[in-house]
Parts: sequence; C-alpha cells; structure tokens
Amino acid sequence: MESITMLGSPKNLSETFLPNGVNGIKDNSKTTIGIIGSGDFAKSLAIRLIRCGYHVIVGSRNPKFAAEFFPHVVDITYHEDAVAKANLIFVAIHRQHYSSLWDLKRLLAGKILVDVSNNMKVNQYPESNAEYLQSLFPEAIVVKGFNVISAWALQLGPKDASRQVYICSNSVQARQQVIELTRQLNFIPFDSGALSAAKEIENLPLRLFTLWKGPVVVAVSLATFFFIYSFIRDVIHPYVRNQQSDFYKIPIEIVNKTLPVVAITLLSLVYLSGLLAAAYQLYYGTKYKRFPPWLENWLECRKQLGLLSFFFTTVHVAYSLCLPMRRSERYLFLNMAYQQVHASVENSWNEEEVWRIEMYVSFGIMSLGLLSLLAVTSIPSVSQSLNWREFSFIQSTLGYVALLISTFHVLIYGWKRAFEEEYYRFYTPPNFILALVLPCTVILDHCSR
Amino acid sequence: MESITMLGSPKNLSETFLPNGVNGIKDNSKTTIGIIGSGDFAKSLAIRLIRCGYHVIVGSRNPKFAAEFFPHVVDITYHEDAVAKANLIFVAIHRQHYSSLWDLKRLLAGKILVDVSNNMKVNQYPESNAEYLQSLFPEAIVVKGFNVISAWALQLGPKDASRQVYICSNSVQARQQVIELTRQLNFIPFDSGALSAAKEIENLPLRLFTLWKGPVVVAVSLATFFFIYSFIRDVIHPYVRNQQSDFYKIPIEIVNKTLPVVAITLLSLVYLSGLLAAAYQLYYGTKYKRFPPWLENWLECRKQLGLLSFFFTTVHVAYSLCLPMRRSERYLFLNMAYQQVHASVENSWNEEEVWRIEMYVSFGIMSLGLLSLLAVTSIPSVSQSLNWREFSFIQSTLGYVALLISTFHVLIYGWKRAFEEEYYRFYTPPNFILALVLPCTVILDHCSR
Amino acid sequence: MESITMLGSPKNLSETFLPNGVNGIKDNSKTTIGIIGSGDFAKSLAIRLIRCGYHVIVGSRNPKFAAEFFPHVVDITYHEDAVAKANLIFVAIHRQHYSSLWDLKRLLAGKILVDVSNNMKVNQYPESNAEYLQSLFPEAIVVKGFNVISAWALQLGPKDASRQVYICSNSVQARQQVIELTRQLNFIPFDSGALSAAKEIENLPLRLFTLWKGPVVVAVSLATFFFIYSFIRDVIHPYVRNQQSDFYKIPIEIVNKTLPVVAITLLSLVYLSGLLAAAYQLYYGTKYKRFPPWLENWLECRKQLGLLSFFFTTVHVAYSLCLPMRRSERYLFLNMAYQQVHASVENSWNEEEVWRIEMYVSFGIMSLGLLSLLAVTSIPSVSQSLNWREFSFIQSTLGYVALLISTFHVLIYGWKRAFEEEYYRFYTPPNFILALVLPCTVILDHCSR
Repeated sequence: MESITMLGSPKNLSETFLPNGVNGIKDNSKTTIGIIGSGDFAKSLAIRLIRCGYHVIVGSRNPKFAAEFFPHVVDITYHEDAVAKANLIFVAIHRQHYSSLWDLKRLLAGKILVDVSNNMKVNQYPESNAEYLQSLFPEAIVVKGFNVISAWALQLGPKDASRQVYICSNSVQARQQVIELTRQLNFIPFDSGALSAAKEIENLPLRLFTLWKGPVVVAVSLATFFFIYSFIRDVIHPYVRNQQSDFYKIPIEIVNKTLPVVAITLLSLVYLSGLLAAAYQLYYGTKYKRFPPWLENWLECRKQLGLLSFFFTTVHVAYSLCLPMRRSERYLFLNMAYQQVHASVENSWNEEEVWRIEMYVSFGIMSLGLLSLLAVTSIPSVSQSLNWREFSFIQSTLGYVALLISTFHVLIYGWKRAFEEEYYRFYTPPNFILALVLPCTVILDHCSR
Repeated sequence: MESITMLGSPKNLSETFLPNGVNGIKDNSKTTIGIIGSGDFAKSLAIRLIRCGYHVIVGSRNPKFAAEFFPHVVDITYHEDAVAKANLIFVAIHRQHYSSLWDLKRLLAGKILVDVSNNMKVNQYPESNAEYLQSLFPEAIVVKGFNVISAWALQLGPKDASRQVYICSNSVQARQQVIELTRQLNFIPFDSGALSAAKEIENLPLRLFTLWKGPVVVAVSLATFFFIYSFIRDVIHPYVRNQQSDFYKIPIEIVNKTLPVVAITLLSLVYLSGLLAAAYQLYYGTKYKRFPPWLENWLECRKQLGLLSFFFTTVHVAYSLCLPMRRSERYLFLNMAYQQVHASVENSWNEEEVWRIEMYVSFGIMSLGLLSLLAVTSIPSVSQSLNWREFSFIQSTLGYVALLISTFHVLIYGWKRAFEEEYYRFYTPPNFILALVLPCTVILDHCSR
Repeated sequence: MESITMLGSPKNLSETFLPNGVNGIKDNSKTTIGIIGSGDFAKSLAIRLIRCGYHVIVGSRNPKFAAEFFPHVVDITYHEDAVAKANLIFVAIHRQHYSSLWDLKRLLAGKILVDVSNNMKVNQYPESNAEYLQSLFPEAIVVKGFNVISAWALQLGPKDASRQVYICSNSVQARQQVIELTRQLNFIPFDSGALSAAKEIENLPLRLFTLWKGPVVVAVSLATFFFIYSFIRDVIHPYVRNQQSDFYKIPIEIVNKTLPVVAITLLSLVYLSGLLAAAYQLYYGTKYKRFPPWLENWLECRKQLGLLSFFFTTVHVAYSLCLPMRRSERYLFLNMAYQQVHASVENSWNEEEVWRIEMYVSFGIMSLGLLSLLAVTSIPSVSQSLNWREFSFIQSTLGYVALLISTFHVLIYGWKRAFEEEYYRFYTPPNFILALVLPCTVILDHCSR
C-alpha cells in the first residue's frame, strides 16, 4: 500500500520531484532528473533543468564524446547509470532506438519515462511513439510530453505560440508529477488525459494549416479563374474591338471585380455543405449514417471557408474605398466636367443611377457588418464564451442573413445590365451573373425547406 | 480506510474508469458505464462511449422497445440491472422522473451519478436539478456535467463553441473521474468546483445573449428615433418647403446621420452608469450598500454598451468612407464644376470650411483609434492577459479620452451651425445638438470631481 | 502517516474546507476561515466569504476597535484566537508586520497561510513576500494567492480582467484546498506550481504595460521627429519661398506623411533585432551565449513593436481613405476643372501618374492584408491554437513578405521623385527616402544570408 495515493504522497514528491521542500528552501539541486540521449534537444533540456535548479544526469552510449558537448555541471554517464540514479527520465532518442534500451528493462520498472519524440509525418506509425514505448516497457510508466517544444524554446525561453505543453499518461500520479515539472520549467501544462491521446499530441507539431489547405486551394483557383475572365472581358475586349487601352485597370479594377465573386462563392460553399448533408440524411432516411469522406472534410473546414470569405470581403472593401483616391478617377472626373461644360448640360443628375449606387453601397455595408460579427465570434476565446444556442444563432442565422444581403448587393449592382446585350462581351455573361449562381441556389434551397 | 485517497487509488481507477491499464493495452471495453434513460441524448452518449471503447449498459423502463432504437452492441436492460453493474451512471432522464428512481436508492449508494439534465427556463426551480438529485439520494455521489453538449455534438464530434464541458461535484474524487472520462470522449473538461455551481452550469445553455438584450433594445430604439428625426428634417422638410426631392438620401445620408448619434450616446451611457453609482455611494455615505437593481443591471452590461457603441462607430466610418464613391456625389461635383465655370470663379477655396472638415476628420480618426483599442482589449483572451491596472487604464482612462475626442468631433462638425436659424428646421435642433447632451453631461460631471 | 494523501482525505476536506458535504446540504457555515489583519482587503474578503457561507474569524491587534469596522456576523478576536480556531488563514497584513506573528509560531505549525500581499515596486525585495513568510514559519504551509484581486473586486464581484487568481505553494495538498476555495468564491483559479512562482505572481499586479514602454517611446519619438520634418518641408518651405499658406495640411496631410514612415520603421525594427541576434551568434561562433541585455529586451518586445506598426498602418489607412472626402480636395478639384476648361484641354490623362497610383494603392492594400493576418494571430487565443511551425510561418515568413511589399509600396510612391531636385526642399531628402533606409537594410541583409 505504498502508493495508494494517486498523486504520490507529499513526502515522496518533495523528496523526488517537487523542487522546494515545505521548509521553503529551494533545493531543486537535490532532485535528479535523468535524460537518455545526447542530441540537441537533450542538451537544451539539460540546460533548462539546471537553470531551474535540478540535478541532471545524462545517459549516453558514448559519455566521453558527449561530455564535450554538454555544460560541465551535467553528469554524463552510461544509460544504465542514468536510469538507476533517477526516478523521472526523459527519453530523448528516436523511436528507432527505443529497442536499444531493452537491456534496461528491469531497471526501468516503476520509473517515469517522458517520451518527447516527434515523427516526420502525420500518422507515420500505426501507434504513437509513446504507446510503443509503453508496450516495450510495460512496467515503466510512460508520459508523453514536451514534443511541442523546440530545443530553441527550451533554451531561450518560449515564444508566444509554444508555452503550452500537452501531457498525457495512463498513470494520473505520473502525469501530475510531469505537470508539476512543466510548471517549474515555466511552461503551461495541459492535461490531455490517458496515453491514447499521445497520437494526437505527436501529430500537433506536424500540422501546417491542415484544415486551411482545401479552402485556400479553392479560393486561389476561383480567384485565378475570375481574374482571367474579367481580364478578357474588360481589358482584352475593348482593346480588340476599339483599340482602347485599358491596361491600367489590371492592378485595381480587375482585382476588385474578382474579389467579391470569390467571397460570395466561398460563403455559399459554407452553407451548401450543410444543405448537402441534410439532403444526404433525408435521402438515406437516417441521421446516424456517416457522411462520405469528401462531405465530411467539407463540413469540417466550413469555419476556414467562412473566414477566407471574410478576408476576400474586407480586401474587396479596401479596394473599393480606394477607388476615389486614384489619379485615373481624377482624370475621368476632370474630363467629364470638361464635357459637361462644353455640352452645356447644367444638370447631369441621373436619378436611377443615383439610387442604384446608394442601395448597392448600403447593402454592401450591411453585409460587411454581419460578416464582421461572424468573424469576431470565430476568435477562439470569443466562441468559447458563447453557448451552443448563441453560437448557432450567429453562425447559422446571421450567416444566412449575411448571404442573403450580399446576394442583394450583387443583384443591385447588376440592376438591369443582365438584360442588356452590350454587357455580354465575347458572348460571356457579366461576372456578377456567375457570382449569383451558387448563393441563389443555397438561398432558394434553404427557403424551400 | 478503503477510500482515503481523494482521487481514488490508481488500482481502482484503472480497473473502473481509466480506459487504459498501465500495461498500455487499450481496454476501455472492460469499463462499464451505465446510462439511465433511452432518449436521444442517451443514444448519442451510448454511441460515443462505445466508439471510445467503453462497455455501455442502458437502463430503460421498457428494454425491449428501447432495444430497437439503440445500436445492437449496447446492453439494454432494466434500471436496476444497469445500476447494479456500473459504478458510474449517467442519469439521462428529466427532473420530473428523478423520483421514479426512488426504489433504487439502496443500489445507488456510493455510485457516481452524472446529472446531464437541462431545464426549459433560467432558474426554473429553486435548486438545481443536480442538487435536487443529490438531496433525493444523499448516499450517491452526484456530478453535474455534459448538459452543455447537444446530442448532435456527442455523435458527430463537437463544434467549436461546445467542446468545453463544465463539471462540478462535492466529491473531488468523483469529479476527477468524470473529468478523466470527459477527456476520453474528446471534450475539454472545466472544473467548476462544488455542486453549488450546478445552478450556474444548468443556466449556461439557456442563455441567449442575456447581457446583450438591454443594450440592443436601447440601441435600436435610439436608432429608430434618430432615423425618423433626420428623415423629417432632411427629407420631409425640403420637400414640404421647396418641393425638393431628396429621397435618395434615405439609404446612406440619413442612416449616416443616425449612426454617430447612437454611437456617442451609447458610449456616454457606459460612463454615466459609473457616475450614477458614485453619486449613489456619495449620497448614502457608504460604499458597502448595494445598488438598486436597475443600476446593477446597467453596470453589468457596460461592456456590451461599449461594444455596441464601437459597432455603430465602425458602421458610421464605413458609410462615411463610401460617401465619395457614390454617383450622387459625382453628379453634384460635375454640376458644381459647371456652375463655377459659368460664374467664372477661378478659385472657390473657403479656408474656414477646409479647416472645419480637416479637423472634423482628424478628431474622428483619433477617436476611432482609441475605441478600437478598447474593443480589442474586450476580446476575452486579451483582457485576461492584462492585469487590473492595465485593464482599468484602457477601459476607464482611454475610454474617457475617447468620449472627449468624439465630443470634439461632433462639436467641430456643428461648428457654428448651432447658432444659425436655417438649421432649426420645423423648429427642431440639428441632430448633433441632441448628440451632445449626454456626452457633455458625463464629461462635465467627470471633470467636476 | 496522517497526511499521506496529497489532496487531503475527503473526510478532512469536507470537514474543513469543502463547503458542501456529500449529503448535499450546503454547510459552508461550519467551515471556519481565519483572517489576520483588519484593513480594507481583510474586510472585503470577510464579506465575500460570509456571502459564500463560510464562518469567518478575524484576528486583530485591537479587536474592539476593528469590530466597528466589520459586519457584526464576523467574529473578531486577537491573533492567537483566530489562528487557533482555523486551519486556513489569510494573512492580510503588510510584509513589514510578518515578524509580529513570531509569537504564534507554535500555533501556526501545520496551518495553511494564504499570503495575499502585494509590494509597491517590481522586485522590491530579494525574495517574494510568500517565500519570506515561509522562511519565518517553516512549519506552516504557505500558499500565495488572491494578490491580483482588488478589495473592490472581492466585494462587488470581479470585473472581466481580474477573475483569474494565480495560486502557488510547495504543498500540492494545500494548493488544491485554496484552489477549491477560489472556485467557491467565484474566481477562476490558475495553478502556478511551487512557491518559487510567488515572485512572478507578486509582480503581476504591478506591471503597467512593461513590454509596451520601450516600443511606445520609440514610436512616439519617431512620430515627433517625422512630424516636424514634414511640417518644415511641406508647410514652412512653401510659406518661406512663395508665401503660400498651406497650414491647413497640418491636421491630415502632415500627419499622414508621418504615420507610414513610423509604421515601416517599426516593422523593420522587429526583424532587425533577429538579424542582430543572428549576427551576434555568428560572431561569437556559438548559439549558447547569452545576448547583451539591450538586445534581449529588444527581442522580447518584438510582438509589441509589430502591433504598434500595425496600429500606425491602420491609422495611415484611415487617414488616406478620408482624403477624398475633405473640402480641400473638393475645392482643388473644382479649381482644376475650371483650369482645364479655360485651357481647353479635352483630356488631362497622364498614363504614368495613373499607373503610379494604381500600383501604389495595390501594394498598400496587399501589405495591409498581410499585416492584418499577423495582427490577428497575435490575439492570445488565436496564437495558442497554432503550433510552432504555423506560428513561425505567419510571424516570420509572412512578416518578411509584408515588409517587402510595404517597401515596394513606398518605392512606387517615390517613383522617380527621388532624383528630382525640387523634392529636396531645404536640402533635405523627401520622407520616403528616410523611410526606406531601415527596411532596405533588413531586406538586403536577409537576402544575403
């Protein structure tokens, strides 16, 4: 009944892992931490442990060689010595070399092994490194952790992104001890539960915007297509027909015709996935059947699609607001004024055009406002402060309203141009007609339910 | 002395609730979790538990009927059997049926009961469901949790807003066991302490922007009033007096006269509440007397008032920036150019008007900058990284400065129009004079202290 | 072996600190909490504890005098009585009076002392107050906590910024008990580990934008210098040379020439520090040598420099977007139109000027977009959701691209003015040439590696 407590008795803790006794005298130096391995990570870890007052013993296959590499206060010895003298041992070697510890099996029994390893690829092995280590040494207590921390962060103090250290183990006691140690080293521990979480923890540092890849590819493809489409219609067409050189339109006007089409298409894609999922469930008559993988992936990256849509919207707004400050605008104005004076037109007011733009701008600002609310509630700490009803009200109800208003924004822009032949250059429909296809589908489908 | 440890001995834990033994072999299947109830939530919970490798036993009043409804791997039996075979039991029935478990009282002694229930209304009953369950079965250990999770989230994996599961119980041991289980099911547990927190936890999913309702009602009322006010003054008045049709002003100009008045009034309301609170304390000569409920509510939703004010400000900015891109602006310009040429005015420069607008825009941008800082520090994770001095410097000092600068912004806009009769249409004062009432009161009162 | 459990046995806890027994009856009133001291904080703490149902006993040097000051339900007595009757005691007196408790040494053995003290200055004493208290009473168990909470927050309920209470102690058991108590009082406990964290916790409430001070001083100095520089070149110079009064340019145009220079200089400073650090390591041939303090401070406040740069950028954008809505712009336009008509110039189009501004605006928007991404990922909860690779991709790769594009933005603005004599007023180079010095250095240095 020595270890019936889950977190270990205070006696044990203060003797082994807790750096300060209850007597208030800092005596980390009495605590010995073992490190197996002598690479870069091992060295940085040793330095940080020593700075925090621990006694460090490093196990190496070639202690003499390794000694030149480490600060001299570190005890460098063979694997077996390091394991024998410490109760908590960092295993800072590659997974391929785990089996080289086989001879230490007896010594490792009851010791806490912290697996800090990472892989080169996501899901490289069927089981996580930590679970593999545990299966090799079932009598040791394996804890996964510190793999999200770079050797660099260990030494120079952590940067913003990486102070959080995820820790898991099947032994709650061992987990708590490593959590304490993490706090000592000035990182923020996060308790991830049992060792089965190790796989997810090992995949963490390998992610590189996983959920963003699909949406970004879609957005870039759409942007490229619509950029070329507008370029042909608005620059090539007048050049071919009238030798009119409008190439100055490329950096701003053509870009600003591309952005809103991409934005509204991405926003429709967010809600289209939900409609497809509902249709799928309706078709199979059950909500307990799994969706096909492509639909599941699509559903998973709705947030990313939405945020990209918002990004394109704001850039579209920036471009639009910059329109009046351009030199081209000034010259066009001055020339118009010249024409008006010469034609002796006292009043050039066109009520219809005025209303078209006033309504167009007005709907644009409204949908920007709603999309901003959606974007703000996507900030993790904001969304966590909302409950399910609030989150779904904003993301679903407000989102649909935003899509509806954006669609009006596009419709008003088109006004009656959709029915005028001159806008069908090279027999292609204007941009805004293509932009309306998906949102109208989604809105009609949504309304018909 | 079987249970002198608070979190349970590791032996017990690995045998009962921890899914993986120290030997690293995943054996959740050996752990039996009971569920009382056979509704939607019970089914989703069962499916998720089974996916995570647990053995599930469901207690139902009518097992045969319920069996058709559940996956066949789930063990469906009568209440008493389910309770007898599991140590941790989810109670997934409505509060009204808690008393139907009365016969199981003896069996429930010492078992952990997880109350997942929700109510229809905030504070529906004098005590929380979980506390009521505990009072019915004082020898069982009641844990509140999982009520913030929908059946949907349980099955399909959680959405953003709802991965956080709040857990409370008077037994720290039982709480830790449910926290471990929560992590296993891939939710993020949050330890809310003793069972007295259950009431707050049960109210969580019922909130629907509680603190936002008052401020939104105030903002919408103000917006409606000032919209109609401006409509009468700026559209009806010229139509009645001169048959001048300015209806095109409705979507943008009238709206943009309404927004800033609402924004600055809301911002004043934030600080007015603090002044009233201080006056109240001064009047009663003590800072230990409670404020009247209306003032307490007002003080509580200051953050919401401030954020709404910021929202109106940014929309006002968006409208203002769009002004020059409108067709109406273009026509007015062209007509002006025509007039100037015909009148042979070489230089139309008006130094006073130039300075008025330069200063007006300049103060507007400054107050927008300050309000943005206030808004950014309202993001939960930003405000949590500030200490009390920093937070109060930004929210109070910077906030007052922002109010002061906004007031100048309005004053400069008004310039000397306040004293010209032509701006008192239908004998009503211009908008900006109404806009100045509250902010000036707050600033004068603040300065006089 | 009475206390072999780390968190205390449930029996002890429910008897002493846990407010509710397993029987579900709220009986905080049976738990006695001691408070030593009778100041403002002691009073507020007592009131809050009583509201949460605890029995409070206050120890004072002069109980009769103190009694008038406290609510009558509080038990006020001498220090020794308070200590004798409670197991958990808040020490709410100043560090200088800790030694006055010396006579209670025997009584304090085994009791939990919560040190709530704060200092007047950062690092005022060599060791933290809590560690000092522990060294005075080695047989007591000192817990640091609640110092970040104001007496005001204790009484009226916490404001946003201050619900988080940092707690540390060498005894995990005592720490857990205070953490439970913190939850009871409706604050959010944060476990900071061993007592050695006390120094950092005591410094927390004293910080006032520590990391911001340097960057703000740099930004304000740069802004002042460039404001005066532009004022002399663009207002004084034309006045002196041609008696041309351009004073109206001060509030907007001069400010808007200052802002972008400061913004791009600050952004360069972010990356310059990294380059200097790399050069330092290259020079000394090791990456394990500490940087000199000035460089370490600089490296530490890179995030603040970057955010300030973003702030100046957005204000620059706001000013630029407001340019066309100014009266001055209108008058200049109208006068130009008049001139064009009088000079009978049918078409004033200048292809080079058109391209210059289209490209200038275009690059400006791109760099704004990238800087916005950088700013968004600086929100704590966003950066915490990124792993090291993602964070470094955004902050380092995207950051450099943003700097590169901003530099193009400036270069295009300059176009060929850099080589025209008329822009060297008073023999000073134009703003944008000064603005280019640092970014070009950083980019060239970065590319040459």
